[in-house]
Amino acid sequence: MTEPLQSGLLIEAFDVQLFRESAESVLAKLEKHLADLSIRGLELVEPAQLTRAARALMTKERDRPAAFDEARLAEIVDLYIRTGVQVHSPGYMGRQFSGVVPLSGVVDFVSSVVNQPSSFYEAGQLPNVAERIMADELNQFIGFEPGTFAMVTTSGGSLANLTALLTARNRAFPGVWSRGSSEIPGPSRPAVAVGADVHYSVARAAGILGIGEDRIVRLPLDAERRIDVRRVRPALDEAARQGLDVFCLVASAGTTAVGAFDRLDALAAVARERDLWLHVDGAHGASLLVSDELRHKLRGIDQVDSLAWDAHKMMFVPAPCTLLFYRDRERSRGAFRQTASYVFDDQPSVYTELDSGDKNFECTKRPMIMSLWVLWAMYGRALFAEKIEYLCRLTRYAHAILEEQSDFETLHYPEANIICFRYRPEWVDEDEVARFQVEIRNRVKHRGNFFISKVDVDGVAALRVVMMNHQITTGHFQMLLDEIRKAGKAQ
Amino acid sequence: MTEPLQSGLLIEAFDVQLFRESAESVLAKLEKHLADLSIRGLELVEPAQLTRAARALMTKERDRPAAFDEARLAEIVDLYIRTGVQVHSPGYMGRQFSGVVPLSGVVDFVSSVVNQPSSFYEAGQLPNVAERIMADELNQFIGFEPGTFAMVTTSGGSLANLTALLTARNRAFPGVWSRGSSEIPGPSRPAVAVGADVHYSVARAAGILGIGEDRIVRLPLDAERRIDVRRVRPALDEAARQGLDVFCLVASAGTTAVGAFDRLDALAAVARERDLWLHVDGAHGASLLVSDELRHKLRGIDQVDSLAWDAHKMMFVPAPCTLLFYRDRERSRGAFRQTASYVFDDQPSVYTELDSGDKNFECTKRPMIMSLWVLWAMYGRALFAEKIEYLCRLTRYAHAILEEQSDFETLHYPEANIICFRYRPEWVDEDEVARFQVEIRNRVKHRGNFFISKVDVDGVAALRVVMMNHQITTGHFQMLLDEIRKAGKAQ
Repeated sequence: MTEPLQSGLLIEAFDVQLFRESAESVLAKLEKHLADLSIRGLELVEPAQLTRAARALMTKERDRPAAFDEARLAEIVDLYIRTGVQVHSPGYMGRQFSGVVPLSGVVDFVSSVVNQPSSFYEAGQLPNVAERIMADELNQFIGFEPGTFAMVTTSGGSLANLTALLTARNRAFPGVWSRGSSEIPGPSRPAVAVGADVHYSVARAAGILGIGEDRIVRLPLDAERRIDVRRVRPALDEAARQGLDVFCLVASAGTTAVGAFDRLDALAAVARERDLWLHVDGAHGASLLVSDELRHKLRGIDQVDSLAWDAHKMMFVPAPCTLLFYRDRERSRGAFRQTASYVFDDQPSVYTELDSGDKNFECTKRPMIMSLWVLWAMYGRALFAEKIEYLCRLTRYAHAILEEQSDFETLHYPEANIICFRYRPEWVDEDEVARFQVEIRNRVKHRGNFFISKVDVDGVAALRVVMMNHQITTGHFQMLLDEIRKAGKAQ
Repeated sequence: MTEPLQSGLLIEAFDVQLFRESAESVLAKLEKHLADLSIRGLELVEPAQLTRAARALMTKERDRPAAFDEARLAEIVDLYIRTGVQVHSPGYMGRQFSGVVPLSGVVDFVSSVVNQPSSFYEAGQLPNVAERIMADELNQFIGFEPGTFAMVTTSGGSLANLTALLTARNRAFPGVWSRGSSEIPGPSRPAVAVGADVHYSVARAAGILGIGEDRIVRLPLDAERRIDVRRVRPALDEAARQGLDVFCLVASAGTTAVGAFDRLDALAAVARERDLWLHVDGAHGASLLVSDELRHKLRGIDQVDSLAWDAHKMMFVPAPCTLLFYRDRERSRGAFRQTASYVFDDQPSVYTELDSGDKNFECTKRPMIMSLWVLWAMYGRALFAEKIEYLCRLTRYAHAILEEQSDFETLHYPEANIICFRYRPEWVDEDEVARFQVEIRNRVKHRGNFFISKVDVDGVAALRVVMMNHQITTGHFQMLLDEIRKAGKAQ
């Protein structure tokens, strides 16, 4: 048997000098990108055209590429940056993706190269320790009992919502994990009650978990588009009459559509009274907890059973970085129950005690906490609180501006950094208003100066602005309104 | 109302010069890390001690940090790199995490900063196009019908396995998504048949999906630890007699324990015959498809219904980067069925046609494909094929070395880059062998020179080596055996 030999191509691809050169080249491009505060939206390219451009940048050698082509890499990176959503530009006001704090991108670069999976302590020691530290740090603002709560990171808010609902399902129907939900005794039909504006991932989780999307009980909203607390008990009674066994109540701390905050204290009282699991989808709004000025919007958060919190939204780190908190650590162990000899240790130790592979869905998990923890370690909570407070203030100011315009209609007072409104110049007929908003959104997008989104509010389309960038000023918002007016005239 | 003002701290944190400086500092550290080819395992630190060290590096200012502290950032990054699994060292032979191709880490850095979520074309145009291109490129080695198959990226192999099983469940039991599995008619008990060595995420998926972990039918293995094809039909018949309604068969292309490849062609015949969904967990081994020398291990892959393929394992890119292929594009639409006005467009267009948010679990999805596509664009398949072939050759060579040692016992001929064996010096009693392997693994770990794993084979502990690093030579493997002998003597 002959000794295996490394190929020249392999040696080149792992060459450290090449690594430095490509990183330097990319860094220069990112620096220029971050420094570019021009107002721009999307540069929308037809997929077929972009595919041709991308294909043209690929090596034509099937088996043996020529020497590393720096110029081609530079073109690829340029194309990548240019054709994406411009989260760092003041023209970007459209979604909840965030322009990251640059340092968190740098830390994530370390994570990409050292590639420490963080479901197991021995593979990524500092990420596991950082998770515990961040759990304690953030719990100062939640208020769970220190020492008996739990937190795991997971790959996105949808996965956090699924995991929480799974824990709730396993608690209410202990046999389902092992024997399947087809053997739930009697006429029981497990169901989940949610606010009518809950994120789609919750209904999706019900479909996945074998609960059934139709078993979602949509609770009516009040004028502020929060769950109408006075109508919760009657709605639950009605669900029970229809044979639904509601075991879980999902509240939103920051709905996706308008950023409304459900009244957690009142809902916690209902949940306690009826032995329901109370989960809060705080993907967007949980970050308001770090602000003394805004924390009150989540009053009662210390009484909920679980909380999903996307740090990649309002903590401004690369996606995904989601934190799933449980009030009761023991209950957090109920999500998954498994053995696998190659990962789970039979003999627990001080080391394996920090493993999260039995409490989070992923086997290989990105050490996502690092980009958050390092920001926190360097800046404390001040950075987050100041940015969030600025964005919420900016949004309230935008609301005030809208109120002064006779051709715009606001749909709610902004609780956070999301505001929905309609453009209604007098020459647009009543029955054309909805279609007109969609048209406006698309025209603004194609003009390429601003990026906003659309949303249905009470079934009628509206324009939606999400303020994620502190480089946006009230002047930029005024410019957006002018852009909308121009778009309205354009054919 | 007063105009909102950006704070000084915010301006500093987003300062482009600071970004450059911190990136330069981190780059120098990563360069040094990659250049360090010393043989090392884990530097295992007690969690309490590491927590103190980490806490000491955090700002003490609660609300107003002092000027940015470069030295502290440098210490944090040093600690991060040092305390992780050393995937780039030849001493690392223990798991399926990979030392990434450095360029893929650089590309992932771009992804971290530009933060383009890739479930929707308009947010990340190039990632969406790159997904289609990579799907076509890799399908050359799979062999699905061009134009009618589908591929989505998703956050890890566990999520890909769950998504595939969900698609299979929704196909076999169409009412479950909407009405829940408690209403499956009659005495039907949905079940999934798997090889006895299947990854734990498949049983976990059954627990999650309401199928039930106990409804996993474990098919017996042959001498090579593949599903024993001759015993599949009898096992399925027996399951049916017990009232189980098997709707899905899960094969492994590279089992986690020993790297065995199930015989896909034979299993596809069974699946067709009985109208079962055939899913392949190729998280580890699907990458062998790009090698002309090794592709034959997956013979029949063109006949399966779905395939999970972790590029963050044997394609050597940062985790997570998982590709989920479906033979039939139409069926891939069956995983999730939803509407959400703020993301899903009512009016499909050439742009929204590329959206994957209705076909992958995540709402915000990292543009994970970019690190893979750019490598492919720069190097073609040669880089991957050459690395994988080297690793598999190295592992066969390691097997040959083990066969020559009287104090070691091999447990299988390596099909890929995983090999399991036991250290059995004559002075260890027969009934101590299992405990001795666990002890050896732990001692090797604590000595800190090498990192290997342990696994149970037929219920008895064994040592496990996974060759993920082409910088490992046969000489390194000889050194590992000596290290094991030394560890055996140490008390």
